[in-house]
Amino acid sequence: MSSDENNEFEALVVLQFSSSTPTTTKNWVVQRLTDDHHDDDGGAGFLVRWDKDPQSQNNILLIGATRERLFEGAENLKLKKWDKKKGLRDFLIADIEQFENSENPSDILFKSEKQRIIWDVLQNLSPKKNEHAVPGVPTKFFSPENDALLDILRDLDFIQNFFPLHDKEELKLLERDWFKSFDAIFKPQDIHKVRNYFGDNVAFYFAFLEHYTKALIPTALFGIFISFWPSSDFFKYAFFCVFNVLWWTIFMERWKRLTNRLAYQWGSLDLKIYERPRSLYQGELQQSPITGLPERRYPRWKRTLKKYFVSYPIVATCIAISLWIYFTYYGVQQSTNARYPLPKSSMAVKSKVMRFVPSASYSLIVIPIKAIYQKIARFVTDFENHRLQTSYENNLTAKLFIFFFVNCFVGLFYEAFFIVDFNSVAQLLTSLVIVNAFIGKFTEQVLPYFNKELKREELNRKEPSHVKISEAVHQAKTLTPFNGTYSDYLTIFEQYGYVALFSAVFPWITICALISNIFELRADAFKYCHVYQRSFARLASNIGSWHYAFDILSSVSIVTNTALIAMQPSVREYFSSYTDVEYILIFVAAEHVLLALKFAIDFAIPDVPYEVQIARAKNTYESHLALINQRKAKAKSSNQ
Amino acid sequence: MSSDENNEFEALVVLQFSSSTPTTTKNWVVQRLTDDHHDDDGGAGFLVRWDKDPQSQNNILLIGATRERLFEGAENLKLKKWDKKKGLRDFLIADIEQFENSENPSDILFKSEKQRIIWDVLQNLSPKKNEHAVPGVPTKFFSPENDALLDILRDLDFIQNFFPLHDKEELKLLERDWFKSFDAIFKPQDIHKVRNYFGDNVAFYFAFLEHYTKALIPTALFGIFISFWPSSDFFKYAFFCVFNVLWWTIFMERWKRLTNRLAYQWGSLDLKIYERPRSLYQGELQQSPITGLPERRYPRWKRTLKKYFVSYPIVATCIAISLWIYFTYYGVQQSTNARYPLPKSSMAVKSKVMRFVPSASYSLIVIPIKAIYQKIARFVTDFENHRLQTSYENNLTAKLFIFFFVNCFVGLFYEAFFIVDFNSVAQLLTSLVIVNAFIGKFTEQVLPYFNKELKREELNRKEPSHVKISEAVHQAKTLTPFNGTYSDYLTIFEQYGYVALFSAVFPWITICALISNIFELRADAFKYCHVYQRSFARLASNIGSWHYAFDILSSVSIVTNTALIAMQPSVREYFSSYTDVEYILIFVAAEHVLLALKFAIDFAIPDVPYEVQIARAKNTYESHLALINQRKAKAKSSNQ
Repeated sequence: MSSDENNEFEALVVLQFSSSTPTTTKNWVVQRLTDDHHDDDGGAGFLVRWDKDPQSQNNILLIGATRERLFEGAENLKLKKWDKKKGLRDFLIADIEQFENSENPSDILFKSEKQRIIWDVLQNLSPKKNEHAVPGVPTKFFSPENDALLDILRDLDFIQNFFPLHDKEELKLLERDWFKSFDAIFKPQDIHKVRNYFGDNVAFYFAFLEHYTKALIPTALFGIFISFWPSSDFFKYAFFCVFNVLWWTIFMERWKRLTNRLAYQWGSLDLKIYERPRSLYQGELQQSPITGLPERRYPRWKRTLKKYFVSYPIVATCIAISLWIYFTYYGVQQSTNARYPLPKSSMAVKSKVMRFVPSASYSLIVIPIKAIYQKIARFVTDFENHRLQTSYENNLTAKLFIFFFVNCFVGLFYEAFFIVDFNSVAQLLTSLVIVNAFIGKFTEQVLPYFNKELKREELNRKEPSHVKISEAVHQAKTLTPFNGTYSDYLTIFEQYGYVALFSAVFPWITICALISNIFELRADAFKYCHVYQRSFARLASNIGSWHYAFDILSSVSIVTNTALIAMQPSVREYFSSYTDVEYILIFVAAEHVLLALKFAIDFAIPDVPYEVQIARAKNTYESHLALINQRKAKAKSSNQ
Repeated sequence: MSSDENNEFEALVVLQFSSSTPTTTKNWVVQRLTDDHHDDDGGAGFLVRWDKDPQSQNNILLIGATRERLFEGAENLKLKKWDKKKGLRDFLIADIEQFENSENPSDILFKSEKQRIIWDVLQNLSPKKNEHAVPGVPTKFFSPENDALLDILRDLDFIQNFFPLHDKEELKLLERDWFKSFDAIFKPQDIHKVRNYFGDNVAFYFAFLEHYTKALIPTALFGIFISFWPSSDFFKYAFFCVFNVLWWTIFMERWKRLTNRLAYQWGSLDLKIYERPRSLYQGELQQSPITGLPERRYPRWKRTLKKYFVSYPIVATCIAISLWIYFTYYGVQQSTNARYPLPKSSMAVKSKVMRFVPSASYSLIVIPIKAIYQKIARFVTDFENHRLQTSYENNLTAKLFIFFFVNCFVGLFYEAFFIVDFNSVAQLLTSLVIVNAFIGKFTEQVLPYFNKELKREELNRKEPSHVKISEAVHQAKTLTPFNGTYSDYLTIFEQYGYVALFSAVFPWITICALISNIFELRADAFKYCHVYQRSFARLASNIGSWHYAFDILSSVSIVTNTALIAMQPSVREYFSSYTDVEYILIFVAAEHVLLALKFAIDFAIPDVPYEVQIARAKNTYESHLALINQRKAKAKSSNQ
């Protein structure tokens, strides 16, 4: 125990054991965490301290590390830091005074980086080589070469919480610029601050949300402008449609460029790291073809079988159920419409309200369905037993994409293209957008926040008022564990779908989306700061498979928008001199031209901004030069 | 001069001066080539020898190097070689006995690699730092920090030829398996041998040609089979069309996988090298943002202006001219058809022949036009003054693609989709395919070969019969300088276009293409071995922009094939119960489904084969481990 090093102990990470954990096991963990890491069979070399708060019941372990240990970890992680002169490069202890903030050594690394270092070491920390069973649980055997300590504990259900601590001071500074002030609403985020606090993956989410929200402004303005422009419907639609296609294509391209610029600035652009298997990956112990060490291996054919015979059928069933629900709603809506015909007088409020009931209920029913499906998708993807986190995420995103695509848009497609009932489409769209905006925020943010406040009060009530409950206990007990950015991306995905797929004929969606997003961004920021437990910063060089999901929507939107325009009676009238066949062929041709244009733009705009290209070339040149010089020096010294 | 080292001198590269080069300049070049390379201001450290043949008139310089110099160059180039145990890795002199063929040190490097090393050193060889004018040409000034020796000589028009020597022995071994034996026609190429002799870029061309030719076999067989299958036209067409879409999509995906596998085996997959500016790149001397050294810089805006106001208009004009020629042909064809109506009796040969004359002449006229356009495209791209070879090649390929696409296919599109005259399409296709196959081979291969033989005889005639003319002189004077693989790719591109865009209704094109390609591959191989000067081996990890060109054709082919099928009267009859509008919508929907299918397949098949993924992960893991161990060792030694 390192509690005597109190003066310099900075708690970085919280490991909360479940109350059933035997003390022997806890001590064993503490031992491994604090053992010197320079030995071949060494531990993590960290500092730990039990949280003294009586509420923690001696289950909350605070993990920290000496500055030197953290620097060493940073070097091993090949963490990129800004050199005062040379720009971003691998952190090296030997050159420590070259890096930014070196006057103040404890500020060289961000707190999130320190926490990531601890996380990374813990992922790789295994029991001693001569140990084969967990002290305190003699029935639990493991393979010390392969099984990481944390995985063994997780398997035994001994870990209740494992998260990095929020830093109140830093959070306050971050909040002020981000969402706490009135100015913040109209100011772009300082995305680098977000990244320094939460890590690349969360920062990319917020960068994307902001980029998307900004992209909505011109379309919204243009949409308003064009609806007041005195011109034929056809020109309005055509103009707005072409504008949309160009705009959203350029939006995705600009996002790609921004992604690459940010990834470069954060040092994750050209990163090649050895990805450890996921901790939940199961399998027989076998020699790994990659590391040559014993590793759990799971045959690919088994995963393929699982995919084809379990996952895909389950996903298909979910889609079928969601379609069945939609068509049930559609039947009810039809009969309601028949029972409450729209009267001529605008006073028949009852009729109007009754007609809105089915679509509103449908929008409401869909929300828990989406939440349940997210659970199912996670469960099924867990079951597929992916070796790497990236492949796990890709598979999960694909499952979410296909279900959400069908669930959110098929009903609208059906009403628009088969029933050709634009009033009904407009009504469904309205209720989906509104219900989503309100109920979504409510269930995702307001409820968890009050829940947290309730728990906090309860915590405080149990103690006499003069006892201050420790921060670690507070965070462990009141905050919601962070569960990835999936549901946040899904929210934008759905909204982007409504905007991109239908905006040519319903330009007002863009305005709703814009207003909703300005709040969404701040509300999400609040959620990450005050509702969720802090997440371990993770490297990311882009938004992953979500990019494809949004890109697919962009392509589909060209098809739907041209079709929607072609189906407007006023547009047909405009082309009344053409036969039906000619009319359709004109629009098919226009659609193909727009698709070709989209791909041409994709191709023509370079994905990597010029300055990043230059900076990359410079790095390559410098490492080339360093190598040549090193060899020249070697040759000279061997000649002498 | 190193002529006293005769015993071990192996001539690798030929540098032929033009006859106007002053002797002082030649001696200066020889001096720089032979000066020791370990000095800071040193030369290339090579061995050179003047070719003694009287025919060479003391203008042909043979360049070689000691084994040690070549090894050093290999290390600097980070050449990848096969370690006996560990697989492919950077060549290191210190570990030389670990590499394959180390029993026989002169066989460790392939001859093409030795030549590439010389090429690379010469690209970077500059005059001495205190020199500012060319000896022998005091009016020619240069900047010794920036201008490479070769570029200065090229600028003065002093270099007539600069190429690596063919190796007769090796060539004989290569030829035997490649095209010299009868077996070779039915055997896959040993692409690694081709790569070892010609380098990655040429090997990728031949790998692609073979991959494409193999992919033609199933379609050709399926095409024959289906035309004899007793079924309705619609089912035949639809089946063949879906088959084609799937097949050509999978073809491109399999090619991507093969590309990555080959690039991995050749060590060029994850290569990041510092790319020097092209030697033809012009500009003002400025500090380079990449190297920090003085470098010729050319402002981007100037290049952009040149593109928009010179290149694109020129390309557009060329396209316009080619369209004008097509429509002129079309007019002539129409009037010929009118003058020579197809008589009922099949004996009216004259009529038939006369009707064929315009399309045959058009096919003939198009050949020189294509050749001229290639020259124009090169000239214009040169004029754009690209800094890097890759961007030069991308821009040139794009220009070639757009022109060839219009020139080769627009006429066919016009007749098929606007005039809806399938007989005429079939006739034009036939003559294009046949004329291309024969005339193409004739002008590209037969003519240059006879030209070479003629020159060779002439050379020999001038000398008394007992004097044997040196190999270097022969190669310099009789072989055609290698000019890149562009025209070879264009030939396949054009043919692939005919196959992919029109095969659904004209399945016999596939068979023609298959037969033509079996010969094309061998004829091209012969051309590279006996007609062209050898090319310097160049690194490549794929076929570059050509991949996009072929991919675009694949996508367009879905559109054209569904349209062609929909336009068949027999298919319309099959759907006679549907109205025209419904009929069109069915086919538009089918086309969209096929397009979506294509992108889904693209997405679902991983681009990098599993074994390459594993090998890559292994490499990353090993370098990660090496780093950790190195740091541990350093930490230990500093603790002691």
